[in-house]
Amino acid sequence: MLTKELYNQYKNEALKYLEKAHIAVTDEEIEKLEVAEYELGCLDKIGLELVVYVNTEKCCAKELVLLPNQTCPEHRHPSVDGKDGKEETFRCRYGKVYLYVEGEKNCDISDKIPEGFDGCFTCAHEVVLNPGEQYTIMPNTLHWFKAGDEGAVVSEFSTKSMDEFDIYTDKRIDPAGKRNI
Amino acid sequence: MLTKELYNQYKNEALKYLEKAHIAVTDEEIEKLEVAEYELGCLDKIGLELVVYVNTEKCCAKELVLLPNQTCPEHRHPSVDGKDGKEETFRCRYGKVYLYVEGEKNCDISDKIPEGFDGCFTCAHEVVLNPGEQYTIMPNTLHWFKAGDEGAVVSEFSTKSMDEFDIYTDKRIDPAGKRNI
Repeated sequence: MLTKELYNQYKNEALKYLEKAHIAVTDEEIEKLEVAEYELGCLDKIGLELVVYVNTEKCCAKELVLLPNQTCPEHRHPSVDGKDGKEETFRCRYGKVYLYVEGEKNCDISDKIPEGFDGCFTCAHEVVLNPGEQYTIMPNTLHWFKAGDEGAVVSEFSTKSMDEFDIYTDKRIDPAGKRNI
Repeated sequence: MLTKELYNQYKNEALKYLEKAHIAVTDEEIEKLEVAEYELGCLDKIGLELVVYVNTEKCCAKELVLLPNQTCPEHRHPSVDGKDGKEETFRCRYGKVYLYVEGEKNCDISDKIPEGFDGCFTCAHEVVLNPGEQYTIMPNTLHWFKAGDEGAVVSEFSTKSMDEFDIYTDKRIDPAGKRNI
């Protein structure tokens, strides 16, 4: 469970990484910074911190913070009411991001999967993003990503975010139940 | 006319501001960095430097650089083929941006209009953006913007960019004729 104490701990940690990335945020954005723990109770392994800049009917932009080795669980953004799911571009701003998407296996992910979560991560097509590098994920494409040892800050440019409809490989995750990406 | 010499001069200057803003770009992005001079021949006053990160059918993200006091001319993004024009969010990353949009006049723009361009700037509703501050402009809304004395770097998050359909207040500007935002 995300207690207030845990929230504040991870929020403060995330703010350090935004500072390392030289990304300015307003007091209001700091106030609203989201910590997604997916009700898995292991934020050090699986989780994500995020600042949502804008999310209109058409456009969304966020800053995502991953603490060292923190992993965002595998999911996809399906069509909703006949409209395509979210299309998103991840652009690394700081640190190193290991992004895994559907497609031909090009690596061994066994050392990247958080301990105890075998079966919750299936994509093994790796794209490594260093600062200034980016990758665009088309709607309904399974993906997950993880920071390297130094953590990472990633800008996300996308169509509308509708987190409540996301589909996770780990069925314990209820997309309607929490803040996530 | 944008000579190769002038292009390189402004490109190199823009790169310094991206560096000041701690924004990493790839060699390929540097290669493709755009300098918009609108064929007005006064880049020191009217112009813009930009890196286009992504521009799909749905989503676009760019980094805009304005050198000190450089001004992006007034324009709007109209509907095209029955589809809404570009919706865009400007987020200041470095420096100070003076953004002017349609709406109630709340300032005197006479000292902000570049010399010799009276009549080409009509919006006088000012929004000042410091690092971390942003503003969303809905489709077909007239707007123009200018950097302060220290220059500015602005992230733009938007729907698809279709520069060639933009409508400028200064009718000497041919949107199909050059790179612009």
